[in-house]
Amino acid sequence: MADRKTVQATQLKSFAESIMLETGCNGAESKVVAEVLVEADLRGIFSHGTARLKRYVDHIASGIIRPNTEPKLIFESKLAAVYDGRGGVGQRIASIAMEKTLEFAENCGIGFCGVRNSNHYGIAGYYAEKAAEKDFIGVSTTNTAPLVVPTYSKEPVLGTNPIAVSFPLNNKTFLLDMATSVVPRGKLEVYDRLSKEMPDGWAVDESGNSTNNPTVTLKALLNKLGGILPLGGLGEMFGGHKGYGLSLLVELVTAGLSQGKFSKETYNERGEICHFFGAIDLAIFGDREEIARSCTRIVDEVANSEKATGQSKIYYHGEKETLKRLQSLEKGVELDLKTVESLDKLADKFGINRLKWEDCR
Amino acid sequence: MADRKTVQATQLKSFAESIMLETGCNGAESKVVAEVLVEADLRGIFSHGTARLKRYVDHIASGIIRPNTEPKLIFESKLAAVYDGRGGVGQRIASIAMEKTLEFAENCGIGFCGVRNSNHYGIAGYYAEKAAEKDFIGVSTTNTAPLVVPTYSKEPVLGTNPIAVSFPLNNKTFLLDMATSVVPRGKLEVYDRLSKEMPDGWAVDESGNSTNNPTVTLKALLNKLGGILPLGGLGEMFGGHKGYGLSLLVELVTAGLSQGKFSKETYNERGEICHFFGAIDLAIFGDREEIARSCTRIVDEVANSEKATGQSKIYYHGEKETLKRLQSLEKGVELDLKTVESLDKLADKFGINRLKWEDCR
Repeated sequence: MADRKTVQATQLKSFAESIMLETGCNGAESKVVAEVLVEADLRGIFSHGTARLKRYVDHIASGIIRPNTEPKLIFESKLAAVYDGRGGVGQRIASIAMEKTLEFAENCGIGFCGVRNSNHYGIAGYYAEKAAEKDFIGVSTTNTAPLVVPTYSKEPVLGTNPIAVSFPLNNKTFLLDMATSVVPRGKLEVYDRLSKEMPDGWAVDESGNSTNNPTVTLKALLNKLGGILPLGGLGEMFGGHKGYGLSLLVELVTAGLSQGKFSKETYNERGEICHFFGAIDLAIFGDREEIARSCTRIVDEVANSEKATGQSKIYYHGEKETLKRLQSLEKGVELDLKTVESLDKLADKFGINRLKWEDCR
Repeated sequence: MADRKTVQATQLKSFAESIMLETGCNGAESKVVAEVLVEADLRGIFSHGTARLKRYVDHIASGIIRPNTEPKLIFESKLAAVYDGRGGVGQRIASIAMEKTLEFAENCGIGFCGVRNSNHYGIAGYYAEKAAEKDFIGVSTTNTAPLVVPTYSKEPVLGTNPIAVSFPLNNKTFLLDMATSVVPRGKLEVYDRLSKEMPDGWAVDESGNSTNNPTVTLKALLNKLGGILPLGGLGEMFGGHKGYGLSLLVELVTAGLSQGKFSKETYNERGEICHFFGAIDLAIFGDREEIARSCTRIVDEVANSEKATGQSKIYYHGEKETLKRLQSLEKGVELDLKTVESLDKLADKFGINRLKWEDCR
């Protein structure tokens, strides 16, 4: 059954770029938004791909995102800087901050940047991976709209707060890119559409009690109650307090260091979320090649450990996405019909040619 | 029922120090081991307190730990260094590396140190917290004996690999100190002693299948099969691949950067585990006091979010341990009878006066 269509990544990228230009974004902004969204689609991370394009268009229309707005450098030291994103386009702001971070690391071996007052920047891993290209360790993290309850709380004051860390290996990259919540909000929405029960440990209701009903949590969230649980689930039995700690740590390095807003305070009139980036040159610890070899060996040995009964592969982090990316580059990006329809509607709205979709082979 | 006895922390510390001196450790080694163990007991982290003293004595006797052995600086750059612990006492090696890390941060704003060929260093948080004393962010992490299976593996090639991060706040410290496994090994041992079933999602058997029987996992581990699950549990449904990623990341920053052994390879003839330390001065991001205020506000607002029904308190990380520490300093350190007996036996073994235990009030 053809419930998906394909399109070449280059075409999808130009299309997304054209749409962003129509919203009032400048060339640099439009280009990087298209790049980051299509990178997500290529890797199979569809929740952060061009399915998001309509939301960006809407956010620009409603003033949450301010197009054509450059970030302002508000503090700089030898190894670190802080930017005010001035409500601009997240991907553009994040790219500038990550470039600055890499400059610090090139000059001194390490660099960090904090960013406040920004917007959704796409997949966190995209920026961390920029460091791997230079044989640096890379870090990228962001707070988000408030969706996650601290352990023993019923108030969603934390974001899903992803952490991405990349490590340069021989001929490949370790790329951990994980929300610090047990699942993303999109997972609840899928279960809601399918009227499916959630397992214990994903979410709580407006009183902070465990619930299996996604509708209950999604409705409660409209009143800023209930929410998704941190990685580790409810209470402390499975380490929910650890996920809560990682999430709070993300708030501290993003909003704390940049003196911006933490997740609870974001997405009122504007996005105003905060990011944090890091880069570390392997060479500050010794010979770059020797260290990369040492790291590669560990990743290989772990991925080659003995498989559990019935399992066919143990992945290292980033491997699945790299394999999918190669496949998508060859066969085209596969998008679901809902996304296809949303992109077609955007084309019509702005009077741009629709993409030439092909059926999946 | 008096199933616990108390003793003053200062007495417990001198006692532990005397025992370590008897094993052939020098003054500096003995002092810091006693300090770190008693700090754990004071905070209520008994699994890492003086209950471990006997294990250290045994490890020295069997040659796993080499007493009276200073670490060797094998690489140094402007912002980072790497030590070879030469099989010495973990707490001593870790203290020297953390001091060096703080020196880097004092001089340049940031510092990192990798350590290979070390031994058990006690609570990870102890070293991270040293940074908070100077208003720096602190990082401390270590690999461990192999106990944890990667997602879809049946082979325990990873350690419980704790990550500790401290953040200096106004008049307090945020201190996240978490194993990246769902539970520590000690938890399985407690369930085993009580013949209690474990919940789903803690551990797997020798085939990599979920098991509720702690004895099954503990026996399988003797053959280097089965083990504890990463934070997030079995498979990917609850984010087990995220805990696996955090654990692998710990291997990379500890063993990878220092070119040492990763968890699978440790504890053969010697410990040979690896650590990693970091310190970051808040001042590289702006005014130290303003940033500390910004971070304090976030932690306070999160801890003061609305409590779930039936819950009386939302803790920030490190708070519970700080409260317990104050109580222990006032009322004495409370130890269980098994630990009391083990310390008394050590006293007898080395011909040292037993501690003067008091009944709990």
